[in-house]
Amino acid sequence: MKPPEGRKRVVIEDIQPTVNGGRYPACRIVGDVMTVTAAIFGDGHDHLAARLLYKHKSERRWRTAPMTALGNDVWSAAFTVNKLGSWRFAVEGWVDHFETWSSDLKKRLAAQPDPANPKPTDSPQDIPLALRTGALLLEKIAQRASGADARILTDMVASLRWMADQNAAFYEYPLNAEVEALASHSPNLEFSTRYEPDLPLWVDRERARFSAWYELFPRSVSPIPGQHGTFKDVEAQLPEIAAMGFDILYMPPIHPIGFAYRKGKNNSTTALDGDVGSPWAIGAPPSKDSEGGHKAILPELGTFADFDHLVASAAAHNLEIALDIAFQCSPDHPWVKQHPTWFTIRPDGSIQYAENPPKKYQDIYPLNFESPDWRGLWDELHSVFEFWIQRGVKVFRVDNPHTKALPFWEWCIGDLREKYPETLFLAEAFTRPHIMYSLAKAGFTQSYTYFTWRTTKAELQLYLEEITQPPVSEFFQPNFWPNTPDILHRTLQEGGRPAFMQRLILAATLTANYGMYGPAYELGENIPAKAPPGKAQVDVEEYMDSEKYEIRQRSRNQPGSLTPLITLLNTIRRENVALQSNGSLHFHPVDNPSLMCYSKSARDAAGEENTILVAINLDPRNEQAGWIDLDLKRLGIPHDQDFDVEDLLTGVHYTWHDRSNYVALRPTILPAHVFRVTRQ
Amino acid sequence: MKPPEGRKRVVIEDIQPTVNGGRYPACRIVGDVMTVTAAIFGDGHDHLAARLLYKHKSERRWRTAPMTALGNDVWSAAFTVNKLGSWRFAVEGWVDHFETWSSDLKKRLAAQPDPANPKPTDSPQDIPLALRTGALLLEKIAQRASGADARILTDMVASLRWMADQNAAFYEYPLNAEVEALASHSPNLEFSTRYEPDLPLWVDRERARFSAWYELFPRSVSPIPGQHGTFKDVEAQLPEIAAMGFDILYMPPIHPIGFAYRKGKNNSTTALDGDVGSPWAIGAPPSKDSEGGHKAILPELGTFADFDHLVASAAAHNLEIALDIAFQCSPDHPWVKQHPTWFTIRPDGSIQYAENPPKKYQDIYPLNFESPDWRGLWDELHSVFEFWIQRGVKVFRVDNPHTKALPFWEWCIGDLREKYPETLFLAEAFTRPHIMYSLAKAGFTQSYTYFTWRTTKAELQLYLEEITQPPVSEFFQPNFWPNTPDILHRTLQEGGRPAFMQRLILAATLTANYGMYGPAYELGENIPAKAPPGKAQVDVEEYMDSEKYEIRQRSRNQPGSLTPLITLLNTIRRENVALQSNGSLHFHPVDNPSLMCYSKSARDAAGEENTILVAINLDPRNEQAGWIDLDLKRLGIPHDQDFDVEDLLTGVHYTWHDRSNYVALRPTILPAHVFRVTRQ
Repeated sequence: MKPPEGRKRVVIEDIQPTVNGGRYPACRIVGDVMTVTAAIFGDGHDHLAARLLYKHKSERRWRTAPMTALGNDVWSAAFTVNKLGSWRFAVEGWVDHFETWSSDLKKRLAAQPDPANPKPTDSPQDIPLALRTGALLLEKIAQRASGADARILTDMVASLRWMADQNAAFYEYPLNAEVEALASHSPNLEFSTRYEPDLPLWVDRERARFSAWYELFPRSVSPIPGQHGTFKDVEAQLPEIAAMGFDILYMPPIHPIGFAYRKGKNNSTTALDGDVGSPWAIGAPPSKDSEGGHKAILPELGTFADFDHLVASAAAHNLEIALDIAFQCSPDHPWVKQHPTWFTIRPDGSIQYAENPPKKYQDIYPLNFESPDWRGLWDELHSVFEFWIQRGVKVFRVDNPHTKALPFWEWCIGDLREKYPETLFLAEAFTRPHIMYSLAKAGFTQSYTYFTWRTTKAELQLYLEEITQPPVSEFFQPNFWPNTPDILHRTLQEGGRPAFMQRLILAATLTANYGMYGPAYELGENIPAKAPPGKAQVDVEEYMDSEKYEIRQRSRNQPGSLTPLITLLNTIRRENVALQSNGSLHFHPVDNPSLMCYSKSARDAAGEENTILVAINLDPRNEQAGWIDLDLKRLGIPHDQDFDVEDLLTGVHYTWHDRSNYVALRPTILPAHVFRVTRQ
Repeated sequence: MKPPEGRKRVVIEDIQPTVNGGRYPACRIVGDVMTVTAAIFGDGHDHLAARLLYKHKSERRWRTAPMTALGNDVWSAAFTVNKLGSWRFAVEGWVDHFETWSSDLKKRLAAQPDPANPKPTDSPQDIPLALRTGALLLEKIAQRASGADARILTDMVASLRWMADQNAAFYEYPLNAEVEALASHSPNLEFSTRYEPDLPLWVDRERARFSAWYELFPRSVSPIPGQHGTFKDVEAQLPEIAAMGFDILYMPPIHPIGFAYRKGKNNSTTALDGDVGSPWAIGAPPSKDSEGGHKAILPELGTFADFDHLVASAAAHNLEIALDIAFQCSPDHPWVKQHPTWFTIRPDGSIQYAENPPKKYQDIYPLNFESPDWRGLWDELHSVFEFWIQRGVKVFRVDNPHTKALPFWEWCIGDLREKYPETLFLAEAFTRPHIMYSLAKAGFTQSYTYFTWRTTKAELQLYLEEITQPPVSEFFQPNFWPNTPDILHRTLQEGGRPAFMQRLILAATLTANYGMYGPAYELGENIPAKAPPGKAQVDVEEYMDSEKYEIRQRSRNQPGSLTPLITLLNTIRRENVALQSNGSLHFHPVDNPSLMCYSKSARDAAGEENTILVAINLDPRNEQAGWIDLDLKRLGIPHDQDFDVEDLLTGVHYTWHDRSNYVALRPTILPAHVFRVTRQ
């Protein structure tokens, strides 16, 4: 029970950031300053020293940064992550005998009796002996140094010994800064403690943290009434979508759609002739140039050449194409015949369709992650991502990842992002918090959230504080969607255009990633589906005439469209670095529960501080007014001073004063101020 | 990069209690119910099952307890720790296909169309197929069961198949509770997930959590004026100390005291003839029957036979003897000659004495934990404890453990308590929080605290909330001392008898472990030493004529002695289980900053709830009155009801009503109420 080396006297614990004690990586964005803290302490009064070790996976040698003590045994160091991918970091601490000696020597010298003015409390300080002790320590350091450094140190050793030999009274500290620096460069690590294990860090590109997504059904975008839209039609819309200021254009699954049990309009279980079906019922019998499944394209959308052209054209518009990866199959999917063991087979030999008894979803076969051929299944699913990555896709929205085994995601995304570290994965999971967070830990870059269902000030503040601060913010990047093809929230159903403006402004300014399903959103589409038997109408979140089951052609630029507001918000987001990350989000109290106020701050590339302050009325019906109690420290504003706030939505400037300031917001006109705060 | 088994779909994380992720054991007391929680979840909608595994180190097989879901993916199970020493526990979870099937079958049966009352939403439920699926699952379970269980299960399999063969409409759930229980007893663990690593737990005897310590200098207790006290004299005082209600009698070091640089009275650097020296300057030249160091007894105190007699006699009075282990040496200690490498040797060949430049403590040689012979040193220090353990000592107060290497303590106490699990170690560390906590994690049972310096209501509440709740309470047992021979706090110096009563009541009721240095405390000794040059008198915490450097004989039963109050408090502590642990401590608001109110509750062995409510005036000079705002839920009192509170210090009963109640406390008479709350 004896450890191999008992002289390692330093203890290191509580390193931050860690996720599940190092089981999963913390996440950062390339260019970020990564700050690491740790509790580092030892016994007794000896001085300690510590360093941070870090390296990108591709590097062989650890780089180091000296750690500094912040007080109360917490030490810190930082480095800039300048490369995508896997990093590791570690912390090492040791007793610094030389620094202890040097500090003690200064105290001894200061306490030397003054022969000209002797005092009864004088105590001889044995300076020659202390100098000899220092010479011994410095001699060992010199042995670890080399070249000119070693010579300078060796000279100093001789000099200390010469001084000791004089046996005279010294009052001056004998070492200069150069010698001290050289000494600290060659520490004695013989008994250093290194925290185990080394800790992982993942570095993404900026789009992981700051992105604006636009979801669109390509089949709905033909300019010819009644005609199935194509990739070419999507391409024609790129200038308009890019002009709105989006970064990512996300399309529901583009694969062949099953015929067996195809859903009709409004989720009818019987499709009529000409019904196009749900894009999420993936897989049709193979045709001459297609295997018919997750690596095929629905012929009506176009060819691979069309797809490639769309991807390239999008890139030219600064848009990335995001594909929807939904790992489920229609009964017509080629895997059903080729790999029946990837599904659950029932005692009668049939394949188990999706079921939530007593409900049946016979158009969908779920995959069985307990398949005896799970390795074959994992490899095939992995190859689906790789197939599209090799066609230039760098962003994936993954459908219902929480119904696929979590260890699969950790392996699959882990492997993919090592090979293609620029790839982003958005988890479309609306489930319990532990599972949402576990998907993020397993590698999903971004996640859908509960935002849609957080509508009151208290709910929004509580939720935002959870997801934008550590520990959650170390691994979880929220993406706020005011609507999706599956979720038309009651707030939008009942609140009309003011609610659409409110939820849009919240999504675009509370978190740096947001998205919308259009043109339903621009047009304020808010008619819910008819409630099915056994469900209350108020609980329905599906759209009437849902685009999931039919082609719905419309122009986003109708009178009353939100396109101009969306365009303005995306411009504000791009021009204000404060809105491009979440860590600085801070809520300021308002004396009216329908008014919410929050700020974000960040420094731009030129080092200029940028501060955005949003005041928003959450009530879609009534004007609300109240007094904000600003946290001036957060805004960098001194007390009792005038300062300028410019509403970026209207261009109007206001002069505010000190912490209490009044706002009144009419939801029908503009439910919010999005202020840029200018420090005087 | 592929894991060996990809079908383990369950994720387990955030197990509680853990200390540093399992690096150190959580601590409990024998008889405690140990509750373990964990986040356990998987993908999809399948039902999960989980179990807690646990065992004492001496057991070969894991015992198990089924875990139950508390909601939000948190699961829990508990077991009673019925044995001292090392335990381990682990959590295992798996997808419970049988339970998923059973739950689905119930829903299918409930949704069966009623032929007598057909509805348009009716959907056939394939009951025969579901029964066959169940038969397959139950068949596999039967293969894991044995004997009569297997027969019952196999019969049920046949029965399910027979029912399926009938192909008729069924409405009744076919399994009875017996079959369901048998099925859950033989789960399929093929793809179960076990949390790694197993987690450690340490179980102490009750005295670790609930103890009253009395510190006394044996050399001061001779009944003959001026004479050096002996173990026999201590023995003569046992009835009196036991009558006060203490459990542990702690003596400063009992070893030979060095002569070199011996300290005189009032810490003078020059001892006069007859000065007895500090007991912490351990070690004198060996005499004929003594090695002169940590395994020897100061001859003036008596012989080993006297010591053994004292230990036995104390036990007969329900008192345990605690020894003070101070790992430092006087220059006369035998180790200095025998093992000079255990000390730091200076360049001139001399041994380094204790120093905090410019101050020198030439009577003390610290040990060097970076000695090349560290293994020899560790073994010898370990053997000191073992030497006294073998003489019947089970409690050690360890002097300044934070100036000895932390890895040494983890090894030394770890090894000792595996062999002698009833041994308790009190860490006398007054240092920074990380180091205090690190000593507790390394194995110290109890710790001195910052209590002495926490005097205001805000300070006390903040500190108590930190140390009596997780995570700290999982590994740290505080021991509150209102005074020690080193610490006479300004509050006592200035507050006189009321302050002594206040600090005593706080120590005895805030935490279940407390102690005092007597008879200085009973007698209210509060004259500080004269400030040394360079120190302000208000900063002095040393006693005038400190017993550390001289014999101080006095009787604890003088007029005005606190002995009766101490006796009463110790009786109240013994009779009220609420005061025997800390986890239930709760502060109730009072509208006067000088008044503090707190409660503790626990169930006694008979299952009766015991609740103590303390209201205390922290001002030693003035009467203070105010309204307490009771948290009635914490007290188990319904709203708007009368209830009885009995002041156990005076025997007076009061009828209180609802949450607001008034107290007025005069510090000169009694600064506190210690109420027992009776639920009506």
